[in-house]
Amino acid sequence: MNYTFAIVGALGNVGTEMRNILETSNLPIENLVLMDIAENAGKTVVWRDREHTVIESKPEAFEGIDIAIMSAGGAASLTLSPEAVKRGCVVIDNSTAFRMNPDHPLVIPEVNPDALENHNGIIASPNCSTIQMLVVLKPIHEKYTIKRVVVSTYQAVSGSGQAAIDELKNQTLAFANDEEMTANVYPHQIAFNALPHIDDFMENGYTKEEMKMIEETAKILDPNIKMTTTTVRMPVVNGHSESLNIETEDSFEIDEIKTLMDNADGIILEDDPENNVYPLAINATGKDPVYVGRIRRDFSADNALNMWCVSDNLRKGAALNTIQIAQELVERDLVKP
Amino acid sequence: MNYTFAIVGALGNVGTEMRNILETSNLPIENLVLMDIAENAGKTVVWRDREHTVIESKPEAFEGIDIAIMSAGGAASLTLSPEAVKRGCVVIDNSTAFRMNPDHPLVIPEVNPDALENHNGIIASPNCSTIQMLVVLKPIHEKYTIKRVVVSTYQAVSGSGQAAIDELKNQTLAFANDEEMTANVYPHQIAFNALPHIDDFMENGYTKEEMKMIEETAKILDPNIKMTTTTVRMPVVNGHSESLNIETEDSFEIDEIKTLMDNADGIILEDDPENNVYPLAINATGKDPVYVGRIRRDFSADNALNMWCVSDNLRKGAALNTIQIAQELVERDLVKP
Repeated sequence: MNYTFAIVGALGNVGTEMRNILETSNLPIENLVLMDIAENAGKTVVWRDREHTVIESKPEAFEGIDIAIMSAGGAASLTLSPEAVKRGCVVIDNSTAFRMNPDHPLVIPEVNPDALENHNGIIASPNCSTIQMLVVLKPIHEKYTIKRVVVSTYQAVSGSGQAAIDELKNQTLAFANDEEMTANVYPHQIAFNALPHIDDFMENGYTKEEMKMIEETAKILDPNIKMTTTTVRMPVVNGHSESLNIETEDSFEIDEIKTLMDNADGIILEDDPENNVYPLAINATGKDPVYVGRIRRDFSADNALNMWCVSDNLRKGAALNTIQIAQELVERDLVKP
Repeated sequence: MNYTFAIVGALGNVGTEMRNILETSNLPIENLVLMDIAENAGKTVVWRDREHTVIESKPEAFEGIDIAIMSAGGAASLTLSPEAVKRGCVVIDNSTAFRMNPDHPLVIPEVNPDALENHNGIIASPNCSTIQMLVVLKPIHEKYTIKRVVVSTYQAVSGSGQAAIDELKNQTLAFANDEEMTANVYPHQIAFNALPHIDDFMENGYTKEEMKMIEETAKILDPNIKMTTTTVRMPVVNGHSESLNIETEDSFEIDEIKTLMDNADGIILEDDPENNVYPLAINATGKDPVYVGRIRRDFSADNALNMWCVSDNLRKGAALNTIQIAQELVERDLVKP
């Protein structure tokens, strides 16, 4: 049983990661259709040694597509996804459009794969900073019941797209050449700085990025987990890092947490501080797992711990997660080709 | 009544800041003696339009000095400070040597100036990341009684000295020129990365930097405050940022906290997110105050809030704090010239 896949937003940063990951995946892909905005239609891309011509992402383009993996932004997804579903296509969407929609599941395959069963045609993939955090929190919650999490993030510019990567590089070159830096993508210089500002600010003083982590955790893992977040943009090209402070209902030994992490799906334990081994953004780039380390007891509260968690925000934080959702859908026979 | 001052470690990064700040201070300085390691003796520096020759920092050099401000590292301070005291000099020390010594006070003038009264000849100045945090926590603790603080830091390389600034710059230039980066000061590349590692690791899994913040808070502000810390080195030249999560005994309104910060000594409130106004490392560099912003309620616990706090780690975090201690000593007539 072979499927016709589509990638929508195929030329973007995340779309490119999707193409790369699909190239070596063992998904039963009969055909891959690449879609992007009108101005990119007609461009060609080589995939599995064959030239593919990009077509415009419009409603009729979804005729005959079994699974569309979309990373085209929230507005495009809101318009296109229902049109795709109407044409019998199952949509896996990387945008914010359907994440908090109660009719559609928000899925991390390591965390809540069963939610896929009631997909109603559209499955949302969570925000990048949520995904890596919940891959880590899931096994801890299952065993010790998490009460509260305090998160501070250290997020890379690749999450804001290619223009942001270029901006960091250009500001860095300006610094190297002793020239003035200009900021267009971010409201302030990102090179050699830390911006406590990701996505728009809301009335309650939080950014949308901060609220996404809280609300998506409630939907995916457990609404009883209390959580507060501070999200910060860093002069890092790729790879998000997170400082997690976790309080649990039940008591634990730190070694038990390390073993739990070591055995968990999708997690690599890198925790040998004496030998300077801990997760690093530059090492996580291009890799699939979520890396955890610096696991230690927090002596300021009962049953509390700190840890450091790093992952490639374009892969597990976006492209890879959508493809893992596709794999799970196919294995569970939840898409009819 | 005029005093003879000395700066010990006068040619280092912090020593340079000390010279700059003293240049325009209104301290009653009759004479300034500049000391540094033997190999720098004989070098000259212009201060207040007059050439000063650096002398070697050795016990006899402290004869006739009333106040010595030291930033020469812990080992040098352990040897030199008692020798200076023997010669009637009061030492204000920026190193770790005497910070946790119960015979000597650890002072932030905005926080615990009364502790100066029993200085026994040596006053320690706290760790950079502690100082800016406690300037902020003090007024909150006074009014609402802080129960617990969860801190994640975003620390600049200047805290590791000039070699670290050079390393970040060289790695940045290597990146710009597409050359390989080399790491000597830090165990890993610092450019475009985040290192959850500041100072040495201890048996309990924390770094010394993390433990300093906890232990110094107990000594300076209140041993009843529970605290946990994660300290992270960033590719920022200068200016430490901190994400603070604070739980208090008493209830508060967020606007009360903002007003409290706005009226506090040594703090500037920069909190207008809608207009992209929040504290930034690049803006704090070269300035005296601690900047706070992103003040918002933490909905995950009772009486809890988050904030973002930034300061120049070489100034308020080191040089400025020692000079403010000198000012307080002079005003309280705690040094006999």
